[in-house]
Amino acid sequence: MSAVTYELIKECGQSGARLGKIHTPHGSFDTPMFMPVGTLATVKTMSPEELKEMGAGIILSNTYHLWLRPGEDIVEEAGGLHQFMNWDRGILTDSGGFQVFSLSDLRKITEEGVHFRNHLSGEKLFLSPEKSIAIQNALGSDIMMAFDECPPYPAEFDYMKASVERTSRWAERCLHSNKSPDRQALFGIIQGGEYEALRKQSAADLTSLDFPGYAVGGLSVGEPKDVMNRVLEFTTPLLPQNKPRYLMGVGSPDSLIDGVIRGIDMFDCVLPTRIARNGTCMTSTGRLVVRNSKYARDFGPLDEACDCHVCQTYSRAYIRHLVKANETFGFRLTTYHNLYFLIKLMGQVRQAIKEDRLLDFKAAFFEQYGFNKPNARNF
Amino acid sequence: MSAVTYELIKECGQSGARLGKIHTPHGSFDTPMFMPVGTLATVKTMSPEELKEMGAGIILSNTYHLWLRPGEDIVEEAGGLHQFMNWDRGILTDSGGFQVFSLSDLRKITEEGVHFRNHLSGEKLFLSPEKSIAIQNALGSDIMMAFDECPPYPAEFDYMKASVERTSRWAERCLHSNKSPDRQALFGIIQGGEYEALRKQSAADLTSLDFPGYAVGGLSVGEPKDVMNRVLEFTTPLLPQNKPRYLMGVGSPDSLIDGVIRGIDMFDCVLPTRIARNGTCMTSTGRLVVRNSKYARDFGPLDEACDCHVCQTYSRAYIRHLVKANETFGFRLTTYHNLYFLIKLMGQVRQAIKEDRLLDFKAAFFEQYGFNKPNARNF
Repeated sequence: MSAVTYELIKECGQSGARLGKIHTPHGSFDTPMFMPVGTLATVKTMSPEELKEMGAGIILSNTYHLWLRPGEDIVEEAGGLHQFMNWDRGILTDSGGFQVFSLSDLRKITEEGVHFRNHLSGEKLFLSPEKSIAIQNALGSDIMMAFDECPPYPAEFDYMKASVERTSRWAERCLHSNKSPDRQALFGIIQGGEYEALRKQSAADLTSLDFPGYAVGGLSVGEPKDVMNRVLEFTTPLLPQNKPRYLMGVGSPDSLIDGVIRGIDMFDCVLPTRIARNGTCMTSTGRLVVRNSKYARDFGPLDEACDCHVCQTYSRAYIRHLVKANETFGFRLTTYHNLYFLIKLMGQVRQAIKEDRLLDFKAAFFEQYGFNKPNARNF
Repeated sequence: MSAVTYELIKECGQSGARLGKIHTPHGSFDTPMFMPVGTLATVKTMSPEELKEMGAGIILSNTYHLWLRPGEDIVEEAGGLHQFMNWDRGILTDSGGFQVFSLSDLRKITEEGVHFRNHLSGEKLFLSPEKSIAIQNALGSDIMMAFDECPPYPAEFDYMKASVERTSRWAERCLHSNKSPDRQALFGIIQGGEYEALRKQSAADLTSLDFPGYAVGGLSVGEPKDVMNRVLEFTTPLLPQNKPRYLMGVGSPDSLIDGVIRGIDMFDCVLPTRIARNGTCMTSTGRLVVRNSKYARDFGPLDEACDCHVCQTYSRAYIRHLVKANETFGFRLTTYHNLYFLIKLMGQVRQAIKEDRLLDFKAAFFEQYGFNKPNARNF
């Protein structure tokens, strides 16, 4: 039995969405679910208690960053990432591949792995499937991700095909180097860009290896939204029904709903936390830039429709004052609200699936949010 | 009846310390008490809930800073500072005088008030006793401070004498311009530097005006510690027994204890919060610089003897990692611990007064803290 299992509870009568539950060695959580990102063993500005209060069942942490700081050996010596950061619910770690490709300018990809320079010190480093899994084993996450290449958009078919094939070979090496499959589940990552043939090839390769879960990678890398939706439409049907499906790096409210409709169970993104630190908030009526001068004397909440602690307690005027003065507590408030907003949105989505009305929910949400307006501002 | 009253519970059998209770329109708190500083309507990195959890009964906020950002009119429109920042316990506001003298280079003191430039924008501004009180009335603090001049150390006797006399005239103007004495108590500030004659003159002037409380100002401005203690020794006996006594800008553990021994009831200082944001912690065995590399694999708490949430939950290794990576949560943890440390220290001091053993407590605390060692590092 895998360390992580997926329980399908119900499929939506209106869409490809599925209601489920994922069981991990650190508790279970309902799906679809959004995972807050805790890059350096902390979800920026938040405490573990606050994450629990808002209903987060699992968070993501970054292997690359923890490898460099403080080093996976220190985390392991602390008793693993859960103990190190005082988080007793689920943790998913990525493979480090995305950061190696996105943060590092100087890199060389070989069959063995990737040579690159540390983005902080310039030091030469090497990351391979085996090394990535060894780090993730040391971190002790519940869900580990296979080390893959995530090419930018657009990429040539021939480059993408070679990359997909290498990613499949790397995935097999990852699977074989997982030292604790009974405690840590390794998910495979389907690549292939916008090419249906390559997504098919990638899915066939990876499902033949029988991973306990699958991610759709290589999306939200600059492609138009309709490309993302189309790729999901022909990719999720290639994945087994009895395993979790994770769409990597997606966190805008519209894309979450569109992903769920196409059969995705898990999402992560820095979007809600990153924009919060710039004073931008997600609300039920759209994007709100709270540092805007029009909120200086607005004593209403960030979002009238929100029942989070921040909206029940603090005004736009106060939060604007804090954000403008660069006060940490302001960023705590915007971060809390944004994460709550997405986690609650996923709860509403689950309820809509249960009641076979996800497309109706989407239509109403998009209308209220303003996604249907011409030139609607997203994130 | 004044908005704020002092209840003397017991005097220490070993020292001039007094155990008491201060009653404000926003609740009562035991004294001696340390007040966390919330300059811009937020105690940096902390939530009001966290401040309550650690036992803070009153906080200080800065009139000068709130006047500039967001403006006292906005705070007043929000329903006052308590409502603006969601803090329903006591608030003391300073007069803005200290900031005008310490932050502003270009200033001109006249009998009417002080002309100076905004330290953020360079704009020309004017602050007077009447203006300071008008701002503090708009903020709605429970305790307001008289607008005074706080000369640096050392200052010539003749300059200090003229300054003390002006400060007394300003104090009277402050008293007359307080629009809500039933809800906001105005404290007078005794100045006079290290000169006993001038402290006597200042105390005589101000006590004749019958303020509901008195501060000892002009200390912790660069003078040696023995000067501070000596000034307190001849100043606090000049103050009425039935009014609170507040020593401004003092927050190192040794100075708090030495101040209490000399009859002080209230203290404030940015020290615990400021050093926390540099990764420096107060512990029962002295100063701990958690970013030091020797804590990289130290999985013990910041302070073995501390029962705060941070020390019960997080390791030095984790906090060091966060502080080194400049993660907000690290500064939340060090700030929480430092404030808890001082608030708990005041609780221990109160217990020692109750049991007539404050000098014994001081001796044991100084010994364990290392204040008795030659070249002991303070803050």
